[in-house]
Amino acid sequence: MKILVINCGSSSLKYQLIDMDNEQVIAKGLCERIGIAGSHIEGKTFDGREYAADPDLPDHTTAFSYVKDALLEGDCKVIDSLDEITAIGHRVVQGGAVYNQSVMVTPEVIREIDKLSALAPLHNPAHIQGINACTEVFGNLKPQVVVFDNAFHSTMPKYAYSFAIPQDLAEKHQCRKYGAHGTSHKYLVERYAEMKGISLEGTKIITCHLGNGSSITAVKDGKCIDTSMGITPLDGLIMGTRSGCIDASAVTYLQQHEGWTPEETSEFLNKKCGLLGVSGFSSDMRDNIDARDKGDENAKLATDMLFYQIRKFIGSYVAAMNGVDAIIFAGGIGENSIPTREAVVSELGWLGIKLDAEANDCRGKEIKISTDDSAVEVWVIPTNEELAIARDTKRLVEAQ
Amino acid sequence: MKILVINCGSSSLKYQLIDMDNEQVIAKGLCERIGIAGSHIEGKTFDGREYAADPDLPDHTTAFSYVKDALLEGDCKVIDSLDEITAIGHRVVQGGAVYNQSVMVTPEVIREIDKLSALAPLHNPAHIQGINACTEVFGNLKPQVVVFDNAFHSTMPKYAYSFAIPQDLAEKHQCRKYGAHGTSHKYLVERYAEMKGISLEGTKIITCHLGNGSSITAVKDGKCIDTSMGITPLDGLIMGTRSGCIDASAVTYLQQHEGWTPEETSEFLNKKCGLLGVSGFSSDMRDNIDARDKGDENAKLATDMLFYQIRKFIGSYVAAMNGVDAIIFAGGIGENSIPTREAVVSELGWLGIKLDAEANDCRGKEIKISTDDSAVEVWVIPTNEELAIARDTKRLVEAQ
Repeated sequence: MKILVINCGSSSLKYQLIDMDNEQVIAKGLCERIGIAGSHIEGKTFDGREYAADPDLPDHTTAFSYVKDALLEGDCKVIDSLDEITAIGHRVVQGGAVYNQSVMVTPEVIREIDKLSALAPLHNPAHIQGINACTEVFGNLKPQVVVFDNAFHSTMPKYAYSFAIPQDLAEKHQCRKYGAHGTSHKYLVERYAEMKGISLEGTKIITCHLGNGSSITAVKDGKCIDTSMGITPLDGLIMGTRSGCIDASAVTYLQQHEGWTPEETSEFLNKKCGLLGVSGFSSDMRDNIDARDKGDENAKLATDMLFYQIRKFIGSYVAAMNGVDAIIFAGGIGENSIPTREAVVSELGWLGIKLDAEANDCRGKEIKISTDDSAVEVWVIPTNEELAIARDTKRLVEAQ
Repeated sequence: MKILVINCGSSSLKYQLIDMDNEQVIAKGLCERIGIAGSHIEGKTFDGREYAADPDLPDHTTAFSYVKDALLEGDCKVIDSLDEITAIGHRVVQGGAVYNQSVMVTPEVIREIDKLSALAPLHNPAHIQGINACTEVFGNLKPQVVVFDNAFHSTMPKYAYSFAIPQDLAEKHQCRKYGAHGTSHKYLVERYAEMKGISLEGTKIITCHLGNGSSITAVKDGKCIDTSMGITPLDGLIMGTRSGCIDASAVTYLQQHEGWTPEETSEFLNKKCGLLGVSGFSSDMRDNIDARDKGDENAKLATDMLFYQIRKFIGSYVAAMNGVDAIIFAGGIGENSIPTREAVVSELGWLGIKLDAEANDCRGKEIKISTDDSAVEVWVIPTNEELAIARDTKRLVEAQ
């Protein structure tokens, strides 16, 4: 069975075609600047063939037609007919409090995703465009599944997801913590259980998805009980360009002094802060660590803030679960930044954790980086959100 | 030596006259609604005499004259002459990054406190009025000392007090975490060391000052390394009427949907949120616990949020210090709310902490509430900010 996984942004479309018999990627690619001048499409196949082009991509349907052609025709052809694709799985950022699991696409589901656009104004409308593009190209009969990025977080107790604001206002505006990266956090704990050959029942796991966007999640008995992102993916850790947690009175204070509107404030906090804002030159953790090593004070501050905040979130989630069995690192930084993992894990002695420095000296590998006598296991597990989406899609289609 | 301790708000003046030979309060009282219709003054003496009156109090100088008269004359007289008062100690909320300890009042110090008013627009101008009132009544020769509420937090490392915003903007607006309740947190760790007969060097202590305003502080080697309040006392835990930590994107989201200005937003987050906002009926923890016990769902949510957030802050500060030796509860809730301490401490088993339920069954007492075989000591220590201010005042005056 082959599953096509689609991740649409407002001006982008990423895809992966996955053979579910062996869970290998057959082809993957990316359309950029859809609806903007300078559109671009590129991709590659399992056996190393590549393509790139700069056609006009006025909308997601046009972009998706190019994806279809790339799969079916030319140098990068991987299938003979669209019939070979059993189903399509879509990533959807915001399922609000409506969806706690993946569902088959129906007109009703599309209406709900549209209604939730207030909570993800850049993402949800783009996801609908992606679904519609697939429907136009494949027709109505090909099953489509939506996998919500925050469904895994739907098990958070109310005292963890609520803000301390009047509850009528919270309900009126659906204003609460939803979290993000749920598909990744879920993949990580399930992969951990699979490797260990254990059930998630009775486990306490902290998953650290650290990348350009970062979130940390407390997972008890396989269920999320808390996560660091909030109503949008701004809250929590210092990120590439996002501030993470920031005192709300600092927000209104800056608005008063800079004269910012709510939109300008949001733009500032999402695009100009984080590692980029603190270092003054780069949102990339590698650049910041390199500059720190060369003596740059602001880069040192930015990296120290990230290390410190990861440690504090781990501490708070150990408290939230009254213990911890395993800590998992994933994402671009979590999988590849040796100094980040070292700085964090070497300060977790209070948990009886011992870093295996030799094991930690690797990138992008599934590996335990704590010593055998460490009281808590620490792992690096490369995450795979596309595979998780494909698995959910397969499961739902087979259950029909 | 007798020290007069003054705490001026924008429309209030609280005082305590303390005999430093035995550290006992000789007289204390309060002027309310200064500059507002319905002014009121009341006080009592060490031996139980009381007074109350409703004179016109157009300004702090007039209020302070009434205080002077109450100390010197009438039924509540406690001293024969102002000469008996050696010095005056003032609480000042915001010392910014300028003051890391208490200082003698000079014209230069008053100018600095005035300059820092942007960071505490309601408090610092009132403190200056209080100092001027004392100068007018006592004359220039009586030494006055200012004790800054956040001086104790000045030892926080930059990675702990910085927000992840561009550093030029942070410096331009002095936008960083300052913390509050520092005089209380300092008093608590010093009292702990005094009781135990130990030096603070080498200790790791978490102090929980929980009242209508609440803050938690990580104190390593007697120095604050992190605290839960931010640029103002809004951040951190859910409080009586304050939201505590809230996703910045929830703030801009509510502004967009409700049309609030920064001032209205600040007013909302400071006055209409917290226990009051969540429960819908009371900012008082006692009322919330009573209502919870009678089955009120929102009161249960409000109290659960406080319990959970205290636990998470404790966890994050254990991580920040890479361990903990003692946890101290203080403030109105910390000293008196048996169910709050029980709910928090009974979930700290991951730290090897064992609650002594019998010891915990008390209010306002200095007492250890962990069992003797608990891995970490947990204490209740009634805080005394006025005494701490008087001690600092005495120390500075004697060092002159």
